[in-house]
Amino acid sequence: MPPTADPNLADALQTLGCGDGDALTIGGLAADALAARFGTPLYVFDANALARRVVAVRGALGPRVDLLWSVKANPSRAVTASLRAAGAGAEVASLGELHVALAAGHDAAGLRFAGPGKTDAEIDAALQFGLGCFHAESGGEVDRIAAAARRRGDRAAIALRVNLPQELGGSRLRMGGRSSRFGIDVEQVPELARRIAGDPALRLTGLHVYAGTQCFDADAFVAHAHRLVGLAARWEQDLGLPLDELDLGGGFGVPTYAGDPTFDLAAAGRGLQQLIAAHDRPARRWFVELGRYLAAPAGVYLTRVVDRKQSGGQHHVVVDGGMHQAAAAAGVGTVLKRAPLLVHAQRLHDDHHERVTLGGPLCTPADQFADQVMLPRFAIGDLVAVLHAGAYGLTFSPHGFLSHATPAEVLVENGTARVVRQRGDPRDALRGQQP
Amino acid sequence: MPPTADPNLADALQTLGCGDGDALTIGGLAADALAARFGTPLYVFDANALARRVVAVRGALGPRVDLLWSVKANPSRAVTASLRAAGAGAEVASLGELHVALAAGHDAAGLRFAGPGKTDAEIDAALQFGLGCFHAESGGEVDRIAAAARRRGDRAAIALRVNLPQELGGSRLRMGGRSSRFGIDVEQVPELARRIAGDPALRLTGLHVYAGTQCFDADAFVAHAHRLVGLAARWEQDLGLPLDELDLGGGFGVPTYAGDPTFDLAAAGRGLQQLIAAHDRPARRWFVELGRYLAAPAGVYLTRVVDRKQSGGQHHVVVDGGMHQAAAAAGVGTVLKRAPLLVHAQRLHDDHHERVTLGGPLCTPADQFADQVMLPRFAIGDLVAVLHAGAYGLTFSPHGFLSHATPAEVLVENGTARVVRQRGDPRDALRGQQP
Repeated sequence: MPPTADPNLADALQTLGCGDGDALTIGGLAADALAARFGTPLYVFDANALARRVVAVRGALGPRVDLLWSVKANPSRAVTASLRAAGAGAEVASLGELHVALAAGHDAAGLRFAGPGKTDAEIDAALQFGLGCFHAESGGEVDRIAAAARRRGDRAAIALRVNLPQELGGSRLRMGGRSSRFGIDVEQVPELARRIAGDPALRLTGLHVYAGTQCFDADAFVAHAHRLVGLAARWEQDLGLPLDELDLGGGFGVPTYAGDPTFDLAAAGRGLQQLIAAHDRPARRWFVELGRYLAAPAGVYLTRVVDRKQSGGQHHVVVDGGMHQAAAAAGVGTVLKRAPLLVHAQRLHDDHHERVTLGGPLCTPADQFADQVMLPRFAIGDLVAVLHAGAYGLTFSPHGFLSHATPAEVLVENGTARVVRQRGDPRDALRGQQP
Repeated sequence: MPPTADPNLADALQTLGCGDGDALTIGGLAADALAARFGTPLYVFDANALARRVVAVRGALGPRVDLLWSVKANPSRAVTASLRAAGAGAEVASLGELHVALAAGHDAAGLRFAGPGKTDAEIDAALQFGLGCFHAESGGEVDRIAAAARRRGDRAAIALRVNLPQELGGSRLRMGGRSSRFGIDVEQVPELARRIAGDPALRLTGLHVYAGTQCFDADAFVAHAHRLVGLAARWEQDLGLPLDELDLGGGFGVPTYAGDPTFDLAAAGRGLQQLIAAHDRPARRWFVELGRYLAAPAGVYLTRVVDRKQSGGQHHVVVDGGMHQAAAAAGVGTVLKRAPLLVHAQRLHDDHHERVTLGGPLCTPADQFADQVMLPRFAIGDLVAVLHAGAYGLTFSPHGFLSHATPAEVLVENGTARVVRQRGDPRDALRGQQP
């Protein structure tokens, strides 16, 4: 079957606004021309597709939910700015991400800082920038935030990240529902909430849950949110403390590899809206935070074929990119590796397929996008496009491994393309080094 | 049992010149003082240990073998210079690594350029620098090297990387012995050797094999080298072409995780010396190339405890470093994760152990060095030292993931320490980015 007969591929092409022609276009521009102009390997992000993702998600979740962009998924200033312009707030997990969010136009007061192991230096700096709210991961962290706020004569807002005793069903990567470094066990929450409420250097805003990612089961997501909201209602009554902000997490699944399911956004939205209707009140703020779901479908990784060879009777195609720049596409972290959503950028509908192994220039068999998979026939010079590559791309990858220059990143917006991350140089391998 | 009763840990400490005291020293300097002076997370390399590794390997392999440092294992200019000063040549796998080798004092004419997917731009630049020899991975690559040499009116030296039909036994990561992007199938070698010999733009130097890494079976390594040398003898006779350079690869195993075996260097050296004695002649050059084996034991990753918490009745320790900076230590790429060689830098012989999960600040359960393993009791502020961390460290890791500042790297040499890679800054997340 031609590659675009795969419904995930067809969806991915549609997200990029690619028509029925034989060549891949991204936001109306030919991938081929972008690669010729900016070189390969290349990341291309479609600003209009990013905006459409935000609009679609906000539409599904309804007017009461604030959508937060998880900067970790793609700490691109331009991508973050595009999402912000379309209506997404942001949550960050490091000072570096805080800088990206600020450079993208966010106000520090609207940002959330999540993740375990926040250091004193990070807490101090975040307070100095005027950070809106910390998501606290432990009692010790609450104490450190309080101490930092006191040192500054400041008051810090805290939401407690709760580790619910149930796992988030249907998700690929789970971070809760068992003993975990993430979040605070339910039994420990009441004492900690009281401690925060009684500390003049702190302000308790509410609760946060984030139990897993690549969740493909909308019902499981809604059920998990129900559990948090139920606990919040009980604790508000038991403790007499308002829990005004409820961050329900995210982790909506995006098809990444051949045969992946899709996430039913409409069902998740309906379920959440019903939940919210039952527990809403004017002072309450609701949040959902998404990374991959917003950005992955709006990005493409372009890499050019450098070599073809035969070995042991099998075809091998070698490209100029690889797992050092697109680790998720190469299946790093997955157990059973499958090919990512991958097309021939110049011949989308060609059905001259062959069984082939397609990999990059690294010294490891792990640097591979496809292992004896039926793919379009790629000749030397042809352009491979990995779709749904707009999240967990360059910065998720070990791009210093083998010291290749980092790829450029380009944003396509309203029919024009501009570089938003300069291509690296081989001499960058020496950056910061001294004899 | 106290941690240092593990023979791998005891060996690792001895390699660093650490005595019987209760605190970790690296090249004679206290880890604690280094962390206080340079901050954490921190990589520390021991120049004298690096030199001793080179001397030990050269001693075992005998006077006929040139030892090459695989820069990919740690593209540190200072580490590469230390190894060069002790007598190691170098092989590179990218232009970035070529720049590191040159900056470390290597002459381009002595360098080898290995790895699949070399681009025209890379080949051109390497020739311009006066590269000594390409290890070619395919017929197409031979053609591209020839074309580049012709364009320059140059002559390029090529060794053919052979994909032997047998796997390298006893190795963890295999790159040959089956259909592969690495090397040239044995059946294709004679025609390709003739083609190179007949091309005035090329010069055939010999053969190369590299079939796997983390090989813990010295006999298997020697048997594999035997196969290459046997083929070389046959091809020399059949083709009437001298194959003067034989690169036997490397991949000697280094214990990395609890319970790993050790590699018998003396046995490998004896076996290779016998092999060489049987096939040597004055014009022949012999090479062994090593990365991890030279550098891993000479390096330490230091990270400080930021948080302790209880969840589900289990202890969790959170440190300021993680898999984004020490991916190999966190078991990235391994199927069954085990703890790396890890000690309490301030209390080496303390036997107050507890069962604990120890991980970093990332948003993924994969950011973990130990999962419910008996370890010394770490309090907040204590210093964790991951040993055998001198190879496949920072640059092997996705250090942009979550946009934390990169750690500094320090070289200890003759009792003094100096920064050889500056600590990054959170603002580096914006480097190269444009709105």
